[in-house]
Amino acid sequence: MYYFSRAVNSVHSEDIKRLMRQASGPDLISFAGGMPNNDLFPIRQIDAIYDGLSESIKKSCFQYGPTSGHPTLLASVRQRLLNKGLPDEGNRLLITTGSLQAISIITQEFINEGDVVLTENPCFVGALSVFETYGAEVHGIPIDENGIQIDRLKTKIDALNKKPKFLYLTPNFHNPAGITYSLERRRELLEFLDGQDIIVLEDDAYSDLFFDPEHEKLVKPLKAHTGYDVDIIYTGSFSKILGPGFRLGFMYASPEVSEKAETVKQALDACTSNFMQILASEFSHEEYLDPYLAFLRNEYRERKSILQKAMNEFMPDGVKWTEPLGGFYFWLRFPEGFSSTELFENCRERGVVFVTGRTFDPHNERDNCLRLAFSNMPRKHIEPGIRILAEEIRKLL
Amino acid sequence: MYYFSRAVNSVHSEDIKRLMRQASGPDLISFAGGMPNNDLFPIRQIDAIYDGLSESIKKSCFQYGPTSGHPTLLASVRQRLLNKGLPDEGNRLLITTGSLQAISIITQEFINEGDVVLTENPCFVGALSVFETYGAEVHGIPIDENGIQIDRLKTKIDALNKKPKFLYLTPNFHNPAGITYSLERRRELLEFLDGQDIIVLEDDAYSDLFFDPEHEKLVKPLKAHTGYDVDIIYTGSFSKILGPGFRLGFMYASPEVSEKAETVKQALDACTSNFMQILASEFSHEEYLDPYLAFLRNEYRERKSILQKAMNEFMPDGVKWTEPLGGFYFWLRFPEGFSSTELFENCRERGVVFVTGRTFDPHNERDNCLRLAFSNMPRKHIEPGIRILAEEIRKLL
Repeated sequence: MYYFSRAVNSVHSEDIKRLMRQASGPDLISFAGGMPNNDLFPIRQIDAIYDGLSESIKKSCFQYGPTSGHPTLLASVRQRLLNKGLPDEGNRLLITTGSLQAISIITQEFINEGDVVLTENPCFVGALSVFETYGAEVHGIPIDENGIQIDRLKTKIDALNKKPKFLYLTPNFHNPAGITYSLERRRELLEFLDGQDIIVLEDDAYSDLFFDPEHEKLVKPLKAHTGYDVDIIYTGSFSKILGPGFRLGFMYASPEVSEKAETVKQALDACTSNFMQILASEFSHEEYLDPYLAFLRNEYRERKSILQKAMNEFMPDGVKWTEPLGGFYFWLRFPEGFSSTELFENCRERGVVFVTGRTFDPHNERDNCLRLAFSNMPRKHIEPGIRILAEEIRKLL
Repeated sequence: MYYFSRAVNSVHSEDIKRLMRQASGPDLISFAGGMPNNDLFPIRQIDAIYDGLSESIKKSCFQYGPTSGHPTLLASVRQRLLNKGLPDEGNRLLITTGSLQAISIITQEFINEGDVVLTENPCFVGALSVFETYGAEVHGIPIDENGIQIDRLKTKIDALNKKPKFLYLTPNFHNPAGITYSLERRRELLEFLDGQDIIVLEDDAYSDLFFDPEHEKLVKPLKAHTGYDVDIIYTGSFSKILGPGFRLGFMYASPEVSEKAETVKQALDACTSNFMQILASEFSHEEYLDPYLAFLRNEYRERKSILQKAMNEFMPDGVKWTEPLGGFYFWLRFPEGFSSTELFENCRERGVVFVTGRTFDPHNERDNCLRLAFSNMPRKHIEPGIRILAEEIRKLL
């Protein structure tokens, strides 16, 4: 009966729905859900913050706020970005309802049906779903353990008959690949893009979650490497350092991009929740955030180490992965012809789930790989889960 | 330098930005801001709810939730909709990040550049801004004190060379016009639309805020009038009954519309804040919401009465308005040729602001009218404000 003028059609949107059904269940050992750990949220800190809010601040929690964001949160996020080395001048900050909204806004700003977006392959499925929903033609560029493969990127750009609208990258603690761009690859990439007039959308949701303080220097954002003629729209999130339930993210971009983005945001949800922004801005004060991040890094490093140890012990030859330096994910790679979808069915029968490789392939094809998330599971599940997974892999190899 | 593929262009979006700059300031008597009263938010109730949340519920506040909404909020909103007489069968509920997001989702579902949307004239400026941002061709149909003028609606539909994608209506306590559709006009409208295959988008943000319990029966939503072959997408909001800072709204529509809407929402912000949904669902329990609504109705009725009394006393002949039965607004109408923009400049110099008429005209033309919001101002400002306004009107008449 209805006529839908817009395509509103996305393979990866269906993947996400399936994933949400499969990712949890009683008695399931789930490596599927790429979310923070339920038991690690800073509940006591937020309780203390809430109790300490004055009457007049609480009133503003309940009210509308500026479309660009609450002034106190804008100030504290900006300070954190400057601490990460991002340039102060020539950029504006916009608070968004989760960083997915920032990706959605940029997509709506730049993409008409059939326009080209370049991504890494594999790629964050949430972003793929946004690009597809707005009708983009998505081309994935392979990555290796040091980042996107620049020769493959160049070949793709040369082969395209239209200019890509933007290049979507997640250089730090990649979801799903678990890799971190090397400093050299960052430099090579920026040199390659210098003056090419291809906008970069840099998604930096995980960079605070490094496992070793030594590695903090590795995660310097592309946008913090100045001196190149490359326009970079930088997005970040509170989902991994406070909680996804707050639905808080941000984008940091040129005034031209930001101004249009604010108009789009006004037409999306008018403004982001003052309530959530005020709690987050209080939390961002160093006395809460820094100790909490230290705690989180430790917790996630421990889980990563348990998983790494179990993998070393149980995984058969022929399975490859890169040990992550931060974030939530291991990305397992198998020989050509291996089907992680077949493996998934076998493992699910034994109560173990993960996310299949092709979910993260922009072309929904490459399936000889899979993602394990170690973030939201009890420690004691990790080894038994890997044991079952390894047994089932062995049968299929 | 940038190429923007999308128009992202809206006269009414600029109006909103201007409004936000002008609506508040120290020592200003502002009838401009169409928001709830800062001093009336249910802070004590939310404090009590927050303090009473169990550890495990708090954990879920911090986590991702289903795209369609948190199950407890879905259940309580559904019950409230059934209490309003909305049909139980054949519809699905989707929680949105404010009801503006619901309007945005529907617009994205149905509208491509150049498609026709019909609205009332005057019309809620937030909705106009959404329709324009997504490239709709908007046609406004005049309303009188009983609702949209059906003969004018018919003439417009007949004159169009393409079928309207939907008709956007706000039958209860209209923003800005302050009117409420009569029962007869509702019936006539539904009879006219019966079988015409024109979707109605019914925005019902204010219907809980009637001033007289007698008038509750007047606000029965169009969607609750069954027996007509008219597809109605119904939207509602928590902004007026809890606080805009929660960014909570909802849409209630056929499964076909809702399923696509959920896919669009997934590409907008993945899900609405669990934190805000859980607090709202606890608040929706009758022990909090009903007494709070009774309190609010009383507070707003008192402000309305003070304003009405001052208008009766000070307004010169030639100024017309309809006394509102609920909501936040008076809509003043002046003779042809009167410029509320000119009046605005004169009043602003004397510290009184409101919103000019043409802001709410889809065609940004008709300016011999203006909106007064009495919701978010101290009682003691009302009479002095009206006195100044009346003096300035007298000078221009």
